[in-house]
Amino acid sequence: MALLKRHAPKKWALSWEESTVGLSCANDVATPLLDQVRSPDDLKGMRSEELCRLAQELRDETLRIVSETGGHLGSSLGVIELTVAIHSVFKAPRDTIIWDVSHQCYPHKILTGRRGKMRSLRKKNGLSGFTRRSESSFDPFGAAHSSTSISAGLGFAAARDLKGEAGHVVCVIGDGAMSAGMAFEALNNAGNSGRPLIVILNDNDMSISASTGALSNHLAAIRKGTEPSASNVFQNFGFEYRGPVDGHDLDTLLPLLEELRDTATAPVLLHVTTRKGAGYGPAERATDKYHGVNPFDVSTGVQVKVEAKAPSYTRVFADALIQEAKADERIVAITAAMAAGTGIDRFQAAFPDRAFDVGIAEQHAVTFAAGLAASGMKPFCAIYSTFLQRAYDQIVHDVALQQLPVRFAIDRAGLVGADGPTHAGAFDILYLANLPGFTVMAASDEAELVHMVATAAAHDQGPIAFRYPRGEGTGVPLPMRGEPLPIGRGRILERGSQVALLSFGTRLADCLKARRLLGLEGISATVADARFAKPLDAALLADLVDGHDMLVTVEEGATGGFGALVLHHLANRGMLDGRCAIRTLTLPDTFIAQASAEDMYEEARLTARHIVATVHGGSGIARGHGEVRRTARAGQQEQPTRLHRAEDR
Amino acid sequence: MALLKRHAPKKWALSWEESTVGLSCANDVATPLLDQVRSPDDLKGMRSEELCRLAQELRDETLRIVSETGGHLGSSLGVIELTVAIHSVFKAPRDTIIWDVSHQCYPHKILTGRRGKMRSLRKKNGLSGFTRRSESSFDPFGAAHSSTSISAGLGFAAARDLKGEAGHVVCVIGDGAMSAGMAFEALNNAGNSGRPLIVILNDNDMSISASTGALSNHLAAIRKGTEPSASNVFQNFGFEYRGPVDGHDLDTLLPLLEELRDTATAPVLLHVTTRKGAGYGPAERATDKYHGVNPFDVSTGVQVKVEAKAPSYTRVFADALIQEAKADERIVAITAAMAAGTGIDRFQAAFPDRAFDVGIAEQHAVTFAAGLAASGMKPFCAIYSTFLQRAYDQIVHDVALQQLPVRFAIDRAGLVGADGPTHAGAFDILYLANLPGFTVMAASDEAELVHMVATAAAHDQGPIAFRYPRGEGTGVPLPMRGEPLPIGRGRILERGSQVALLSFGTRLADCLKARRLLGLEGISATVADARFAKPLDAALLADLVDGHDMLVTVEEGATGGFGALVLHHLANRGMLDGRCAIRTLTLPDTFIAQASAEDMYEEARLTARHIVATVHGGSGIARGHGEVRRTARAGQQEQPTRLHRAEDR
Repeated sequence: MALLKRHAPKKWALSWEESTVGLSCANDVATPLLDQVRSPDDLKGMRSEELCRLAQELRDETLRIVSETGGHLGSSLGVIELTVAIHSVFKAPRDTIIWDVSHQCYPHKILTGRRGKMRSLRKKNGLSGFTRRSESSFDPFGAAHSSTSISAGLGFAAARDLKGEAGHVVCVIGDGAMSAGMAFEALNNAGNSGRPLIVILNDNDMSISASTGALSNHLAAIRKGTEPSASNVFQNFGFEYRGPVDGHDLDTLLPLLEELRDTATAPVLLHVTTRKGAGYGPAERATDKYHGVNPFDVSTGVQVKVEAKAPSYTRVFADALIQEAKADERIVAITAAMAAGTGIDRFQAAFPDRAFDVGIAEQHAVTFAAGLAASGMKPFCAIYSTFLQRAYDQIVHDVALQQLPVRFAIDRAGLVGADGPTHAGAFDILYLANLPGFTVMAASDEAELVHMVATAAAHDQGPIAFRYPRGEGTGVPLPMRGEPLPIGRGRILERGSQVALLSFGTRLADCLKARRLLGLEGISATVADARFAKPLDAALLADLVDGHDMLVTVEEGATGGFGALVLHHLANRGMLDGRCAIRTLTLPDTFIAQASAEDMYEEARLTARHIVATVHGGSGIARGHGEVRRTARAGQQEQPTRLHRAEDR
Repeated sequence: MALLKRHAPKKWALSWEESTVGLSCANDVATPLLDQVRSPDDLKGMRSEELCRLAQELRDETLRIVSETGGHLGSSLGVIELTVAIHSVFKAPRDTIIWDVSHQCYPHKILTGRRGKMRSLRKKNGLSGFTRRSESSFDPFGAAHSSTSISAGLGFAAARDLKGEAGHVVCVIGDGAMSAGMAFEALNNAGNSGRPLIVILNDNDMSISASTGALSNHLAAIRKGTEPSASNVFQNFGFEYRGPVDGHDLDTLLPLLEELRDTATAPVLLHVTTRKGAGYGPAERATDKYHGVNPFDVSTGVQVKVEAKAPSYTRVFADALIQEAKADERIVAITAAMAAGTGIDRFQAAFPDRAFDVGIAEQHAVTFAAGLAASGMKPFCAIYSTFLQRAYDQIVHDVALQQLPVRFAIDRAGLVGADGPTHAGAFDILYLANLPGFTVMAASDEAELVHMVATAAAHDQGPIAFRYPRGEGTGVPLPMRGEPLPIGRGRILERGSQVALLSFGTRLADCLKARRLLGLEGISATVADARFAKPLDAALLADLVDGHDMLVTVEEGATGGFGALVLHHLANRGMLDGRCAIRTLTLPDTFIAQASAEDMYEEARLTARHIVATVHGGSGIARGHGEVRRTARAGQQEQPTRLHRAEDR
């Protein structure tokens, strides 16, 4: 394979010191070639030398933009040359380019007509931080969860073949993403299909943090040339294998991609090696290679520090788990390639043998945890709400059906801000709390989280989950050690007489605020924290329904979850008989695009103001009655309720 | 590797003609060795020759039992010698033996103290057709969905190591199960862990039907010795590889397993080749190798035919899809290794290029379908309800978020009888109908199913799913071709005035029967078929709530689904104000063990009788009031309702 230069000198990816000359006054840097690029078509006439200069301009521009907006930097810097090469050789959107996960899509966005909007990245009404079909015809398939690109790409290839159309399908997937089971399912099917499909393995030996697992070792051996080359895993899966080649070397990439474009008649995998954060010293030197960053000073790499008023929920969880683990050596922790994100890195530092990073492998993580639980251990499976969706069947089949006491620590539950709808934790309440034998909790503040960690540690009768949001806590004092909560018991925080606000999880503060607003109107509200969506607190529900004119449930989750279970409970006990009006506030029946947390709560109609409006709407106050009346059945006389404005008293 | 004899003569697995001598009078066959086996300990003293004879007795006994009970035969016949070898060499339950999927666990059950109960297999209160923790200490981990064994086994191994205990962990996994992504996630983690773990790959080149995919080709090449042996996929994943060896040859298996038991200090994979259905001619000759059978005559292999009164839902779906596909060449069909089970084999016969069997790979199946939909095709993804759980994240992230019009044909929705709780389709309504933009239908009979196939084919605005049960239809006349239903519109079948029974899906017939029973008591009931759980028919709901004293929703699914969405809808429109009592009948909050369909509906309290009882309970009739009163709020006077017994009129 004469075309391949293994480990060619990185002549195009300049070192940071060379590349950032002048970047200290970043906005002055000229980008004469990039300025000519309105679409990838504009790359077609450029000579190799020009493409190399364009790549450098693209790197500078990406740095400049992300230094202002924050976002996912390291992955994008690693694929600058690859992006230029792909868009120079292939003809998107006729050719289908799919970026796996799409953390690395910023240079692609810049080259595909979105440069002018890049400073709106990850902001409300701005560009998504990921590829998005509705944003551009150059994004044929949206992504954000890992390892979907080969499956989707094979779908495009099959459709192309059925329709008798031309066009290449190119999937760019990282070595971390390649390790997830779904990618192997796709390789298994694609390798056997014989369909032309180009998979580019972007091997930087990193997931968000360093890659882990046997595949990572195998790829390292291939890179070092110590693996018997007769048969690597991709060849075993029926792919033609090309590489490894230096993914920063356009002189190698361009002719190789041209060859694949012009000759590939079967599935082929091109193995390129790149450096996450390439060409920017502070990124290259950082442990996570500047995976995700706040705005920063380009000349120093120093990121803007957002002052925290309280420790993050993640940190509180990790510290609480460490406390419990000190007292019980059966406690172990599992993360799926999110050690830092979930706080399991802290647990791992404290108990190296008792922490397991299984890689991007949520399915395996959950059943591995089930095996540990079946052996008498106390596994805490720490997975974000949105990623835990990957393991739903394992939760049902391996955990719930066997009533194994696996503990689920569900971070990023609810709305998550800039990462947008792909990362929202909207569905965990409903997909867990309707499973027989599950116990499901939500923390309303970080002290509650500490107690819920203790509750989960103590609960050995079956699976138990506790959810908590992204970001920092509310600033409440933290107990030294959590105390197990009584299972299925909520708590009343404020007593009132007319309206009951029953919160499950993070919206409790807004319920308390709503109570104050209602109080100004003379409406007396009880505020309760359900703590448990399952089992429900039947006594608390009876108390609230019997003692109030209206009950409003509030949760940061979709329909079908906490509020639904409350409704089922009340319905089947004959308690929806008009004695108390019921409203359920949930996430709306839409996917909410990225925005600030505050804007997202506005859009979701889950703020104190919306809770008040719900009370008004439900009780008739908003319709201007002097005396509040429950909407009565046609033909029946309206009955005054106990809900009055102050002036009516 | 001197121990390995490749393709040794199958001296222990006699041909059917040899092995079944005398089986025509099956009950007379003597099993002197098997009769001595009360537990695997009893194998420990047996010499190799005795174990071979024991294996033959075990095969005969397995055949005899399944000929009477029906069940999963082919897989069990394929592992007779392997089961004897494992239990002879390892010491369960101190050593952990995990059977993947566990279709093949019958011989294991016979050897582990359950022989006397085998004729209760798959029956109510009998033995499960799968391994089950609650059934025996020899079943350390239950299974029924594929590809979980290595993950669970690694959990056991990690726990063993943390506790400093001894004991081997042996996972037996088929080549079909090995192709699912989850197995690769486990290999990736286990191969890197270095922990002693014995994975036995039981390679019979079959899933339920013939295996498909690149891994299957790779294994075939290994079996034929044409694969460069330097590096197969298991070695690439860090496992020591041993094999392939003849899994029916105890002279090979026994010393090899002893060697692994005595020397393995790292993850090792033993590749054994077996024949599904081995030793029984009718099974070996059948396409599916007698995967799952009705009771049969051992001497002829002829199975008892259960006379069908109507075509199966599966068949009706397949034929309807073929009709639609004749008219629209964009329609394609996807199955995940269940071509026969889903009816996609029929579609494939009609449109070979438009059917895709992607292997045991539900995650890939769904995102592959999403790629097809993004290319303008009309993919029908035909996956059982319980297995679709495997693809929940792909449904959320790749389909729903992108609003791609993937059609989900959800077979085996609801209770499934003998396969028990692992195969019940209990959760699909809730995990789909709470997703933004999804359309979710359920067929109340097979004619409705035909219309729903047409509806899905016509619906291009976003994802759409239709669920239908296992088994045969109700016998209604079938339309030649389906007609698209109006989206989000239900239908009223019978008009009444007091009680409204609102069915979603299969329980409609029981609602109609309940109406007749109520009518005998003078209670007038409306029966409606919601057809859609999402979007809900708001006008129908208003009609039912305003025009009746009680509304009962009925669905063959867990809480959080149809009934929950009805409750949310009514609550947030102020319609739970006492004008109409509401009850929601769902599957109960338990996992229902295997039984006949009738017994399961009894246990689930979803029969006509239970619907009537719900009406009584909700209206007070059951409490013997002469005049039916709605339970009134304490301190308020009870209001008579419009619900009267006939004698009160």
